[in-house]
Amino acid sequence: MTALADDRRKQILAAAERCFARHGFHQTSMQEVCKEAELSPGSVYRYFRSKDDIIVAMASEHRANTQAQFAQALALPNALEALVLVASQVLRQINDPACAPLHFECTAEAMRNPRVAEVVRREDEEIVSALLELVRRGQAAGQIDPALDPRRASEALVALADGLSWRKFLQPQTDTTGYEDTVRQVIERFLRP
Amino acid sequence: MTALADDRRKQILAAAERCFARHGFHQTSMQEVCKEAELSPGSVYRYFRSKDDIIVAMASEHRANTQAQFAQALALPNALEALVLVASQVLRQINDPACAPLHFECTAEAMRNPRVAEVVRREDEEIVSALLELVRRGQAAGQIDPALDPRRASEALVALADGLSWRKFLQPQTDTTGYEDTVRQVIERFLRP
Repeated sequence: MTALADDRRKQILAAAERCFARHGFHQTSMQEVCKEAELSPGSVYRYFRSKDDIIVAMASEHRANTQAQFAQALALPNALEALVLVASQVLRQINDPACAPLHFECTAEAMRNPRVAEVVRREDEEIVSALLELVRRGQAAGQIDPALDPRRASEALVALADGLSWRKFLQPQTDTTGYEDTVRQVIERFLRP
Repeated sequence: MTALADDRRKQILAAAERCFARHGFHQTSMQEVCKEAELSPGSVYRYFRSKDDIIVAMASEHRANTQAQFAQALALPNALEALVLVASQVLRQINDPACAPLHFECTAEAMRNPRVAEVVRREDEEIVSALLELVRRGQAAGQIDPALDPRRASEALVALADGLSWRKFLQPQTDTTGYEDTVRQVIERFLRP
């Protein structure tokens, strides 16, 4: 992709993000995305043929961010500390007014739209795999109880994060960063030998 | 309400439940509910004026069930055992093919429909309150670490259950009763003194 094409793509994604956060994915038309991006339909359709294409692209950008966060965490020598770091990043993301509405839109859409559900499912699998790697490493290093089922434990931690995100949806005034201590306690007490 | 009216109401709710599980809340019309219930629109509208009214009634039935489960748990002398019992009931419910599709429908609808969101929010608040009572009782009895923030701890447990329910949606082949051991470990290790 040329630098211009890459800029164009980012411009469209940023415009779509603003539209989705404002009116919801479902209520936004491709026409509105074009208008927000200040581009002709022809230019937009060259990059994205549908709203589904846009949300798939957003998810892969989000995935790249998540992978970068895990890479940072994996560099820590202690798996428990790494998990606590990832958790605090997730809690900040859930709280971020620039991220949360789009995340909720994506979740709502996944519940109605199998193509979006597939994107969310793939991302979930990658997150579980990254956590699993951390948990297994911690078990090998004696930092995490080797008697725990590592996959179930990883999935329980992902579930905790997903559930706190749902709590933010239900109670938008919640400051999810206020859960940092509690989540650290869950991680440390549940996992340590 | 007379016995006949109560039967009618239940008949309509059961029919609506089948329709929602089959085609989704959003795709179901009141006409289909009438047909499924084998009642005239006039009879159905006497009890429920809209699909929203039906989902509100379903939620209050569900709430009554949840309260009965908590009452059973509150009768146990040990708060940790009570929490483990509630968790295993929740995991069975998430797994139940007769409950899960309707629960997912209700969640999806809550993300688009403020009136349904309000119903889900009220139910969530009641569940958090019931757990909070259990956690505080456990702290007073020395079964749960008194240093934990009881509200945050209760909300984290609800989040874990909500997140496992979301996992069942994403990965429908998951047997959530298989998480029973892991969830028991989270509850016991996180909460005990």
